[in-house]
Amino acid sequence: MKELRIVSGMRPSGRLHIGHLSVLSNWLRLQEENDCFFFVADWHALTTAFDDPGSIGENTREMLADWLAVGIDPERSTVFVQSRLLEHAELHLLLSMITPLSWLERVPTYKDQVQQLAARGKDITTYGFLGYPLLQTADILMYRADAVPVGQDQLPHLELSREVARRFNHLYGNVFPEPQALLAKESLLPGVDGRKMSKSYENEISLSASPDIIEKRVRMMITDPARIRKNDPGHPEVCHVYTYQELYNRDLSTEIAASCRAGSVGCVTCKLRLAESLNKYLKPIRERRERLLAQPGLIDEVIERGTEKARAAAGETMRLVRRAMRI
Amino acid sequence: MKELRIVSGMRPSGRLHIGHLSVLSNWLRLQEENDCFFFVADWHALTTAFDDPGSIGENTREMLADWLAVGIDPERSTVFVQSRLLEHAELHLLLSMITPLSWLERVPTYKDQVQQLAARGKDITTYGFLGYPLLQTADILMYRADAVPVGQDQLPHLELSREVARRFNHLYGNVFPEPQALLAKESLLPGVDGRKMSKSYENEISLSASPDIIEKRVRMMITDPARIRKNDPGHPEVCHVYTYQELYNRDLSTEIAASCRAGSVGCVTCKLRLAESLNKYLKPIRERRERLLAQPGLIDEVIERGTEKARAAAGETMRLVRRAMRI
Ligand code: SF4
Ligand code: SF4
Repeated sequence: MKELRIVSGMRPSGRLHIGHLSVLSNWLRLQEENDCFFFVADWHALTTAFDDPGSIGENTREMLADWLAVGIDPERSTVFVQSRLLEHAELHLLLSMITPLSWLERVPTYKDQVQQLAARGKDITTYGFLGYPLLQTADILMYRADAVPVGQDQLPHLELSREVARRFNHLYGNVFPEPQALLAKESLLPGVDGRKMSKSYENEISLSASPDIIEKRVRMMITDPARIRKNDPGHPEVCHVYTYQELYNRDLSTEIAASCRAGSVGCVTCKLRLAESLNKYLKPIRERRERLLAQPGLIDEVIERGTEKARAAAGETMRLVRRAMRI
Repeated sequence: MKELRIVSGMRPSGRLHIGHLSVLSNWLRLQEENDCFFFVADWHALTTAFDDPGSIGENTREMLADWLAVGIDPERSTVFVQSRLLEHAELHLLLSMITPLSWLERVPTYKDQVQQLAARGKDITTYGFLGYPLLQTADILMYRADAVPVGQDQLPHLELSREVARRFNHLYGNVFPEPQALLAKESLLPGVDGRKMSKSYENEISLSASPDIIEKRVRMMITDPARIRKNDPGHPEVCHVYTYQELYNRDLSTEIAASCRAGSVGCVTCKLRLAESLNKYLKPIRERRERLLAQPGLIDEVIERGTEKARAAAGETMRLVRRAMRI
């Protein structure tokens, strides 16, 4: 029996990397027992990248291949692409009529991001950027979600969704449940150069990386700078390789730390062990991805079927919404 | 041969009144030689009336009956209802991503209307109200209109549409022509009590008014207050009845003015003459309206066929837009 209706989306960033695994493994857990709607938030990608949309379509397909490869199951869950459901734009528009500007202006991420991007010489004070938490609200309310997995910094967005739901119900009658937060930890896994893991820094290990690339990227990792000679005692707590070992060689991590501190293992050996474990972990994902992509039209079919399933649910909500608003 | 692609909309205000005839006769003229898209702007109705949408659906149908009754021809023109084409919400959303907030904030009607309604104790500073000139922009650009009939006060809205079209074309390649203004005079016909003609003041003469109602409303009109006795000389220039006579008894208006000034006609007789002329003018419209409504399902059919025609054109534009934005 499916417990909760859950909605969650991801911007189409093309091939995913291991930094995304914390969100994806959360989705896999949620998928087991709930009625999940997982979507590619491709319209959201335009809020900050309107002047360089790259290939949103291609990125969507690459990301979907990764979702399926890690085990997101389009039979069990509803997997869809936001821009295929114009109902999301309709609900966004209808909700915009009842949403005070001030509610959007006070969302903390709004001013933060505007300032951050302004510092990089980019002006994103568009109407669409101001409204993007409302588009998220429409995405969530569309499926009358009971709950939404969110990181700490996303809580104000969810609070907005709850406020908008309350206001709608108050004005037009009860249509939307107030979605609850399922607090999820965010990945803190750094990129191989120690900065935030991101394709734009080329410091990521993608889920579909070949063994060669994995090894190459692991070799780039910065280790304890105090270790000059191979048998100098090391400090795993300051070493990024060790951060990874703790995740991908969990069983051996105590032993690794000990031999590092004792100076009995060299960093090159240590890195090769990590590369091997990472490869062992990613191999089945990579192979599954290849099998999926070998079936021509499979991703398209998943999108079509997901669109249909999502449309059935969205259509039901929109009938209630239009009737309530007497439009 | 159809000259220009023209788009124009009207908010669904239910039964129209003779004050709307100036816009409608402009539409009739435009319809003769152009490829016209006339639409019911039902989403727009929510920007100021979100808390009391009345029956937008019913008002839409009443207004459509009036359009057809005066001669708007759904075979020749594309007559549709905005909310049936979710593409309008989609384009509005996509355009929102490239539209600086400041462009919307500086539209003169925005601050004006916010202040006017605030004075009446109503707060409409919603996200949707700020964005409504952008929704108009989407309505116009959707059909890649060459021209749009506008009143003087609407020019800044059209200028916004032109700016947004330019910005889109600059960012993503040429998709939208810049729509030109077809300046149209607005009706200055006052209501029977001298205030602005409006259903909310109950001072209107609706296109479908019965002879009785027409007479009743005309009798309510305020005439020259200096005429106390029937044969006091009158001043047609200050009399609302005369304003109407000039429109609806054009041929006789010089004679009427003369006998008024000479005190040789009483106001009651003058009003009855006006009521008669108005009735003569409105009778064919009223009868046509009745014939239309006697055909069950006719209005629905017009909406369905119009939606289909509009969707073909909108679909073509959206294919270009999505391709240009690579979404
Ligand atoms: S041995 Fe391993 S944990 Fe220790 S510093 Fe080198 S790479 Fe890091
Ligand atoms: S006679 Fe007619 S025009 Fe003259 S004041 Fe009376 S109503 Fe007005």
